[in-house]
Amino acid sequence: MHNLVRMRILGIDPGLRLTGYGVIERHGARLSYVASGTIRIPAAGELPGRLKHILDGMAEVIATHRPEIAVIEKVFVNANPQSTLLLGQARGAAICALVLAELPVSEYTALQIKQSVAGHGKAQKSAVQEMVKRLLKLSGTPSPDSADALAAAICHTSHIAMTAAAGGQLARMGLKVKGGRLVG
Amino acid sequence: MHNLVRMRILGIDPGLRLTGYGVIERHGARLSYVASGTIRIPAAGELPGRLKHILDGMAEVIATHRPEIAVIEKVFVNANPQSTLLLGQARGAAICALVLAELPVSEYTALQIKQSVAGHGKAQKSAVQEMVKRLLKLSGTPSPDSADALAAAICHTSHIAMTAAAGGQLARMGLKVKGGRLVG
Repeated sequence: MHNLVRMRILGIDPGLRLTGYGVIERHGARLSYVASGTIRIPAAGELPGRLKHILDGMAEVIATHRPEIAVIEKVFVNANPQSTLLLGQARGAAICALVLAELPVSEYTALQIKQSVAGHGKAQKSAVQEMVKRLLKLSGTPSPDSADALAAAICHTSHIAMTAAAGGQLARMGLKVKGGRLVG
Repeated sequence: MHNLVRMRILGIDPGLRLTGYGVIERHGARLSYVASGTIRIPAAGELPGRLKHILDGMAEVIATHRPEIAVIEKVFVNANPQSTLLLGQARGAAICALVLAELPVSEYTALQIKQSVAGHGKAQKSAVQEMVKRLLKLSGTPSPDSADALAAAICHTSHIAMTAAAGGQLARMGLKVKGGRLVG
């Protein structure tokens, strides 16, 4: 069970060229920005070395910011199958870094993430950046990759809030959820 | 520089349901079988847990058999983009396990692997199993996943042998290869 009062969340936007990350903190209903950035993976070189770059970069982010949970965007399959394969390998490496650090990992689709920050699933990149800036009271606009990663983390907080609210309502009705089922 | 006289090689046939592995040893021109098997990944459960299963399984294989280098099959993109993405993530996790163990990793296509064990790139699964059995003097036929992993390891030994032979010929001509170029 996570602490619902204070929680530090790491969001990840995976990619083989750029992997975005964003760390936020949730205190009750209030969100605050901790850090964000982009792990740049060298375009040259063999795949194993590039995946190691993701593992090492993620490990450094985790060691520096000590999140308690992680959230990663469910990626879309790309029109180009070779790109889909490369993206899959990059995402696999990012998830490996998270499980090696023993972080619980939640996954949300881009649609869910956009809905939670911008109110609809077809929001443009720029709208996501703007909403992330507003929700976290940032002085500047985050890069697209950082914004997507921060948005993933924000999405998780709204998911937790909904689950908690639903739990509260159910409790008042004398019910609870166990193993995905309502029990009296 | 690897020891060309004695070398222990781990071959990997990556997959999200089954990841095959095979360990062989090369003593000069002679190959011998060390071990092989399959890491079975639970079909149920979230992706992070399944990738952790690959990381842990591979770490155990590496700790038990202590290979000096690793070889992994370059996978084909699948007709189904979602399968390609899943396979990419599984392959990414297998490569992460190799780089975490600081093993140098070589990659070969299925075509190169089949060519090196069966003499042509369109060999059937059963032909690869049969040739692996013969080359390693096994008493029984290995499973398809183990055979593919052993074949990947065998492919690397023939690559080393060719490189060494080419190096010897060049040396007799007073030349060598440096940074991919012939130098006098």
